[in-house]
Amino acid sequence: MNNHRVVIVGAGFGGLFAAKALSKVPAQVTIVNGTTYHLFEPLLYQVATGILSEGEVAPPIREILPGRDIRLGWVTDVDVEARHVVVDSPDGRERLVPYDSLIVAAGASNSYFGHEEFAEHAPALKNIDDALEMRSRIFHAFEMAELEDDTERRRQWLTFVLVGAGPTGVELAGQIAELAHRTLEGQYRRADLGTTRIVLVDAVDRVLPAFDPKLSAAAEKQLRRLGVEVRLGTRVTDVDAYGVKMETAEGEERIEARTKFWAAGVAAPALAGRIAAATGAPTDRAGRIRVEPDLTVPGHPEIFVVGDLAATGLPGVAQVAMQGGTYAARTIARRLAGKPAGKPFKYFDKGNMATISRFSAVADMGPLHLSGLLGWLGWLGVHLFYLVGFKNKVTTLLHWLVSFLGRGRAERITTTQQIHARRALQLVGEQVTPARPHEHSR
Amino acid sequence: MNNHRVVIVGAGFGGLFAAKALSKVPAQVTIVNGTTYHLFEPLLYQVATGILSEGEVAPPIREILPGRDIRLGWVTDVDVEARHVVVDSPDGRERLVPYDSLIVAAGASNSYFGHEEFAEHAPALKNIDDALEMRSRIFHAFEMAELEDDTERRRQWLTFVLVGAGPTGVELAGQIAELAHRTLEGQYRRADLGTTRIVLVDAVDRVLPAFDPKLSAAAEKQLRRLGVEVRLGTRVTDVDAYGVKMETAEGEERIEARTKFWAAGVAAPALAGRIAAATGAPTDRAGRIRVEPDLTVPGHPEIFVVGDLAATGLPGVAQVAMQGGTYAARTIARRLAGKPAGKPFKYFDKGNMATISRFSAVADMGPLHLSGLLGWLGWLGVHLFYLVGFKNKVTTLLHWLVSFLGRGRAERITTTQQIHARRALQLVGEQVTPARPHEHSR
Repeated sequence: MNNHRVVIVGAGFGGLFAAKALSKVPAQVTIVNGTTYHLFEPLLYQVATGILSEGEVAPPIREILPGRDIRLGWVTDVDVEARHVVVDSPDGRERLVPYDSLIVAAGASNSYFGHEEFAEHAPALKNIDDALEMRSRIFHAFEMAELEDDTERRRQWLTFVLVGAGPTGVELAGQIAELAHRTLEGQYRRADLGTTRIVLVDAVDRVLPAFDPKLSAAAEKQLRRLGVEVRLGTRVTDVDAYGVKMETAEGEERIEARTKFWAAGVAAPALAGRIAAATGAPTDRAGRIRVEPDLTVPGHPEIFVVGDLAATGLPGVAQVAMQGGTYAARTIARRLAGKPAGKPFKYFDKGNMATISRFSAVADMGPLHLSGLLGWLGWLGVHLFYLVGFKNKVTTLLHWLVSFLGRGRAERITTTQQIHARRALQLVGEQVTPARPHEHSR
Repeated sequence: MNNHRVVIVGAGFGGLFAAKALSKVPAQVTIVNGTTYHLFEPLLYQVATGILSEGEVAPPIREILPGRDIRLGWVTDVDVEARHVVVDSPDGRERLVPYDSLIVAAGASNSYFGHEEFAEHAPALKNIDDALEMRSRIFHAFEMAELEDDTERRRQWLTFVLVGAGPTGVELAGQIAELAHRTLEGQYRRADLGTTRIVLVDAVDRVLPAFDPKLSAAAEKQLRRLGVEVRLGTRVTDVDAYGVKMETAEGEERIEARTKFWAAGVAAPALAGRIAAATGAPTDRAGRIRVEPDLTVPGHPEIFVVGDLAATGLPGVAQVAMQGGTYAARTIARRLAGKPAGKPFKYFDKGNMATISRFSAVADMGPLHLSGLLGWLGWLGVHLFYLVGFKNKVTTLLHWLVSFLGRGRAERITTTQQIHARRALQLVGEQVTPARPHEHSR
């Protein structure tokens, strides 16, 4: 075995595919990740809305990559001279992991455009914690609407605002509409779930802007049919515990809503800034690293950046990360084998998909544009094919059968801790209310 | 519809069966519960050890009892003169719910015998929060053992202590042994999971003391074969972040262990004390209410106490609660129909079961005593039969197939929040260590 050490930062699609492609390469591979699971992010919205369990979209890395060197921890910095990454470990100790080649596949998160204070009231959906938090907020809102005697407050609990009309915002809006109008129908006595408002807001002029315009139009039509209010050309200017303030072409508007989610913007994690500072690499406005055509950091052929963290002009989707991870691994393999450099990285676009509701999706595959049931069947097939691990595939299919053909949601748990956290937030909010009543009315 | 108001406190087995038995009775039934789910408690240990998802053992009450009046909240007190219960709601408001008949089925929890400070280091298993906490502690311990360079500390992470040799302690010990010696085999590189120690401690002289002595012996033998150290006649006298202190016939002993769970003792919730104070009802040492032969509180024929909260001399198992709930509902129905009082409550014992590992269980059913594979098949049949809801039955069976026939655990998630909480605890612990080193060595 060669002593060449490869460190992979992140076990998302980029890191996982890099590790897989390195499995037969004579190198010592170490994977550092902040969780013990790989996340099948395209299905995370189904955990947030009660369809799938967290285990179904987040298989353990150790099961996918048996026998590999996997370390739990957060990479906080890279020393490009000494060639090691600095890992903050869950026991509070800092550990240094040396590398000869480094593949950074740390992903990106949403951007609040300088308004981090919105996050508490409108969380984003990036990991399992987020999904469980969203799940509890959604189902808890219906419970609170049932308890509430005041009509105005009940309306607040039955209003959901999604900020960002990309795939995540569209999928969440569609699923919440299904929950309110189909799944939970008849399960509440005092709250009329038929009056539930779901509002999808974005400053852009069409939903799913990365898709073909015809598919955007189809998706919007399907959303409206589900009862989702689509508000385009509308910018969110403030978010608090009770609602959002928006700027439309007609002026300012406020929507009273207890439950808000954020699915807009792109922001690179702090690690990108550390790498940029250490290497002098340029970054884009979101903080992503501008890489060479072979995905390496300028002046550092031993450091690859793949997936969402690389500013390549490509969309932040799983396929780009998978192909980037594989490309980086193969480049390292070529070098170790003494072969000349290969061609620059080229993304092969297999298409883009988003579900609207059960039996309804849009799929943008080159010349092929599918919507409605056809789009949904395409979505189902592709996701079943790509889901990692046989076990998950079978139970996931069953949960889908339950949710799509039946009416149930198998995973509706709100933990007691979540209820109490919600309550504490609310008590603070209620106390604050009288002091600033103007904020809570138009 | 009659205007007779029945309030059921708790949606466990007792409350659920009372509600079901009241479905055709002309009365207004309100169920108050602190969670939105009914808990299938006998399978909770499978959530704690990664076999089942939380949704599979905790279906929504609203799905099991469609169209019923269900309120999320905690009953803190009963006014027996005004005949209402006081409900602390998740929005921080106090709500009063009036009753004509009251069925209290609030359950019981474990007792730390006056040492509540043990709970932080050795949590008990009573609800979904507990199960998710245990799951994260178990899987996190293996991750930490993998990261740890120090042999002594690694040994601490690979030692698990279960306090209490009833069904929960036995089932957890068996499952952790399976995890360490079978499921996770080959998934770690530096931690040798073969050296994992699992210690089951109890002051009694046999495991599963509620079972026939021959089955206790069989269970102990099966546990030892799995590598579990069974320490009977041993009393736990102290628990801290790093281990437990015990008193044996030979004197004091300390076991260094990061992961400890508590499955001993019985304690009634605070509500029992409030009811006792309001009605003058006697309680037993655990705080449970001593009821009349018809399960009512002495002097208050309108108040029933069923399940674990009633001091009846019967074991704290699901069957007792189910039959008690049904009995209380039928008594109310007789009264509304103007019929004379029925016979006193009589428990029909359908038997008692505990799993040791896959393919191995003990079943104590009257004259029939099964152990090993036969016991396990009995356990499987009974649990599939009783699992609430068809959907859960199918996916649960699949997860069981995966875990029992295969080697996987579908649900191994530790959330980021849990990792950080663990880390914070550890940092505090590490700082404290130098100041009291004597406590961490024999």
